[in-house]
Amino acid sequence: MTVLAYGAPAADQPLSRMEITRRRPGPHDVRIEILYCGICHSDLHQVRSEWAGTHYPCVPGHEIVGRVAAVGEHVRSHKPGDLVGVGCIVDSCRRCADCDEGLENYCDGMVGTYNGPTADAPGHTLGGYSQAVVVHERYVLKITHPENQLAAVAPLLCAGITTYSPLRHWGAGPGKKVGVVGIGGLGHMGVKLAHAMGAHVVAFTTSESKRADALALGADEVVVSRNPDEMAAHGKSFDFILNTVAAPHDLDAFLALLKRDGTMALVGAPATPHPSPNVFNLIMRRRSLAGSMIGGIPETQEMLDFCAKHGIVADIEMIRADQIEPAYERMLKGDVKYRFVMDIATMGN
Amino acid sequence: MTVLAYGAPAADQPLSRMEITRRRPGPHDVRIEILYCGICHSDLHQVRSEWAGTHYPCVPGHEIVGRVAAVGEHVRSHKPGDLVGVGCIVDSCRRCADCDEGLENYCDGMVGTYNGPTADAPGHTLGGYSQAVVVHERYVLKITHPENQLAAVAPLLCAGITTYSPLRHWGAGPGKKVGVVGIGGLGHMGVKLAHAMGAHVVAFTTSESKRADALALGADEVVVSRNPDEMAAHGKSFDFILNTVAAPHDLDAFLALLKRDGTMALVGAPATPHPSPNVFNLIMRRRSLAGSMIGGIPETQEMLDFCAKHGIVADIEMIRADQIEPAYERMLKGDVKYRFVMDIATMGN
Ligand SMILES: [Zn+2]
Ligand SMILES: [Zn+2]
Ligand SMILES: [Zn+2]
Ligand SMILES: [Zn+2]
Repeated sequence: MTVLAYGAPAADQPLSRMEITRRRPGPHDVRIEILYCGICHSDLHQVRSEWAGTHYPCVPGHEIVGRVAAVGEHVRSHKPGDLVGVGCIVDSCRRCADCDEGLENYCDGMVGTYNGPTADAPGHTLGGYSQAVVVHERYVLKITHPENQLAAVAPLLCAGITTYSPLRHWGAGPGKKVGVVGIGGLGHMGVKLAHAMGAHVVAFTTSESKRADALALGADEVVVSRNPDEMAAHGKSFDFILNTVAAPHDLDAFLALLKRDGTMALVGAPATPHPSPNVFNLIMRRRSLAGSMIGGIPETQEMLDFCAKHGIVADIEMIRADQIEPAYERMLKGDVKYRFVMDIATMGN
Repeated sequence: MTVLAYGAPAADQPLSRMEITRRRPGPHDVRIEILYCGICHSDLHQVRSEWAGTHYPCVPGHEIVGRVAAVGEHVRSHKPGDLVGVGCIVDSCRRCADCDEGLENYCDGMVGTYNGPTADAPGHTLGGYSQAVVVHERYVLKITHPENQLAAVAPLLCAGITTYSPLRHWGAGPGKKVGVVGIGGLGHMGVKLAHAMGAHVVAFTTSESKRADALALGADEVVVSRNPDEMAAHGKSFDFILNTVAAPHDLDAFLALLKRDGTMALVGAPATPHPSPNVFNLIMRRRSLAGSMIGGIPETQEMLDFCAKHGIVADIEMIRADQIEPAYERMLKGDVKYRFVMDIATMGN
């Protein structure tokens, strides 16, 4: 079946409208009419071939929300008309220890929502900047938010789970002091989620101008990380720091704020390395520098349910499909509060 | 009271015999006649002023074993004639959360066995290259090994606890695959201890010549880390890696061998930074790069008891006090299996 999509025909060409095909649903497949798709930094890196191995045509998008249009004969978990979401993962091996534990995000056979290997034409997966997608039921999430919040739910599928998973894994909750470094697409979700989990949340930003915004998002305190005195006042006090900044920066300044046995988890990988962290900072208080990547399917459902219960959505700015290139440029400058979401209904115009 | 010691009068002078004073034991003090003292890399760095802030005269030594000569009136835990040990810590604040949990090693007020602040003359602590030492009973460990093993017990007080603590903290034991990087003073203890804990132990060395030795120490497998094929065969398979190598090296080669949720703990800090670790390696499988420093007093006692029960001591080479400078030179070249121990009885000759 042919549907419209927005994608890049080649590395040196801008995104434009194109026709793509989606497979006929198999017995375990769900066909989803896409309503909104969030715009993630990864989309831009992949489509512009800034990461290795981009296949063209490239249709990005892995913060997908929509309505079930049809299901395969064996599908019991979803039915036509349901509001559903699809995140960064559309397939995995389904038989390794990671898959068994619901950590498909760490499966060696994990297939990304775009640019992943598939038997479908054209041989690699095509993402959510499109009118429809067909996905195995295991990777389709239920959405219970009110329908009028649907666009703002989209970014939960990547930015939400990418911050929720490490916050849960490292025990953010009542009695814990949690830092969130960087108040962008990921960081603004990190602040909202850590606050809803009951932690004492300190937001770190490089710009004085984001202070009021961070408090409004739910931070208990805001630290301008360029101010050494403000930083020093929080020395050795954090249980956990979620670092969402992918640009190379001084990790030691934040590691020094961890208590004994504290962890700082990185969820973004820089294009060029961070300055090498000071090993003394790790040794002196048994601290850890860790990483975390997205989250598994069961945890993504848990995150969506948690957000629905706590009334949490992303702060978004809606764009038309044909505004994607200028949206990328603004995103590169950090000029968005805090996530662009594409209204897929504009694609056919 | 005046005793003989070996120390450096100044940064540019070799170690030589000198007289130092020890305080009269207070109500909670234990006076120990030192029998043997292990020689640690830290001794050399400190005495040669390669680390900041060395005070002179500098008497190194924090792998101390000896016999109780006298105790203060309130001391109940030790009595004259007992075999005891003193490690890297001779005091701490005794009222912080770290001290309360028996993790005096992470206390901000921790006082090192040498070069730490003290009211005693000359205003900084003087270590175990000496005939006697006076230490608060809290920091004195009981030794239950047979007396004829005493010299080989000395290195347990630093090299033993520095490897035991992270192995225990990160759960080395039956069913776990544990790597030990570097087969020197620390690493040879790490292999023995991890083996005794019941883990499957893989020793990593850069030299083919250490293969047989590492197996003899208790390693189940040995990997020559310069051989990429051997390394690749262990990809994503380790629960925990204890990295004892302080020289700057490629951490990614080892991080890539960790399973999901695996940790590599560093116990040595390089003089110049390691190449910056690849963040993707951390993110892709939720790995951690951590540090660990020595161990607390209760855990040091636990380690000594564990070693006594399992018949574990260090492999040592005994030296006379006046051989300390050539011993340092050999240690710098890695030419020792695996720890030098000074026979304090030779100091008076
Ligand atoms: Zn994303
Ligand atoms: Zn799998
Ligand atoms: Zn030492
Ligand atoms: Zn303390």
